[in-house]
Amino acid sequence: MWTSPTAGLAPGYAQANLVILPRDWAFDFLLFCQRNPRPCPLIAVTEAGSWQPPVSPKADLRTDLPKYRVWREGQLVDEPNSVSHLWRDDLVSFLIGCSFTFEADLLQAGVPVRHIELGRNVSMFRTNIPCVPAGRFSGPMVVSMRPLKPADAIRSVEISGRFAASHGAPVHIGFPDQIGIADLNRPDYGDAVPVHADELPVFWACGVTPQAALLEAKPPLAITHAPGCMFLTDLKG
Amino acid sequence: MWTSPTAGLAPGYAQANLVILPRDWAFDFLLFCQRNPRPCPLIAVTEAGSWQPPVSPKADLRTDLPKYRVWREGQLVDEPNSVSHLWRDDLVSFLIGCSFTFEADLLQAGVPVRHIELGRNVSMFRTNIPCVPAGRFSGPMVVSMRPLKPADAIRSVEISGRFAASHGAPVHIGFPDQIGIADLNRPDYGDAVPVHADELPVFWACGVTPQAALLEAKPPLAITHAPGCMFLTDLKG
Repeated sequence: MWTSPTAGLAPGYAQANLVILPRDWAFDFLLFCQRNPRPCPLIAVTEAGSWQPPVSPKADLRTDLPKYRVWREGQLVDEPNSVSHLWRDDLVSFLIGCSFTFEADLLQAGVPVRHIELGRNVSMFRTNIPCVPAGRFSGPMVVSMRPLKPADAIRSVEISGRFAASHGAPVHIGFPDQIGIADLNRPDYGDAVPVHADELPVFWACGVTPQAALLEAKPPLAITHAPGCMFLTDLKG
Repeated sequence: MWTSPTAGLAPGYAQANLVILPRDWAFDFLLFCQRNPRPCPLIAVTEAGSWQPPVSPKADLRTDLPKYRVWREGQLVDEPNSVSHLWRDDLVSFLIGCSFTFEADLLQAGVPVRHIELGRNVSMFRTNIPCVPAGRFSGPMVVSMRPLKPADAIRSVEISGRFAASHGAPVHIGFPDQIGIADLNRPDYGDAVPVHADELPVFWACGVTPQAALLEAKPPLAITHAPGCMFLTDLKG
């Protein structure tokens, strides 16, 4: 059983963020994703009770991720390697696109990705960009930051812009303070990654955004992937 | 007879830079364009002596531009409204893509283009980026600059990147000094255009590049369009 982060696994295939919610919270969350496609690009949503996503019919969402997080009323209560014991007929699973997918394309195009080079997690920041609220879900957009030389920044826009299912083109480039980020050396999630003087910080909408909204909404039960332990789809990225 | 700049005419159709050279200079220039596709995206090249470009078979390149420039040994000697009197059987015409084409797409996408708003010519700068030499032609890349807010800069990369025939995506963004530009307020060609504190200067390869290379190579005769007085093609932009 694989229990480690999935970065670099199954190159060329899309990886996905996972959010599982009870049926009576599912409409609000689906609407939140529909209204905020950059941070929450939906790859697939199951029927209530099904653990088989349409995009990977042989998968079992209860056991196929390396590690899960279980949240009750917005509090992290467990990090199991399976959620079979928690399964209920009213659970709806959401698969949301992940930046691991376009990072592989950046690397293939010769665009360096510093946090991968440094063996760190990507830097992530809460911004002052509000998501469009939907029912009980609201919150700020969370972004990931990659420092790039100008020519690489341009390439990264062209490359990531082709992948709407993994956050698409950047949402900001160049001025962290314009989106409410005071200090690039102090990310809200992930690790600090240095930005050199000849580089631009480039910001993409991040799949942590729906988790932040989830924690604020405090549903009685929510299951997500553990950080970096994504669902590997059968989809070409 | 139309004798004014063509910006804004025939929206949706590609406009083109024109360069006309004697046959014995044509191979070098064609190779220069082939090796430098960002500043010199070739739309069409005629057979020697023909004034009918393949892309616009009803056109007459000797008379259809509002204004021409005639160069002898690298010196500007005339600005006529027709070059019929200069026509020779050995003249080859090159049509090169023009940024007017993607500017129309920027405006349609809601991305403001300041020099158009201000009624000025775009700012153009000689850079320290060398073109790949070809025969007797060499020289620095000339770029045009458009100041854009970060989100618009990102959109502009996505939009212009689709139009390889009109210079494609930007070649630089953010740091003028990295490409040898000392002062954005003192363009080498065109008009100064202010860059606000919350904006990034975005630089595209410019169709003036081949003219700069032409002047340095000093062919005995060259005919070009006059600044802003482009050839209107029958091609959808």
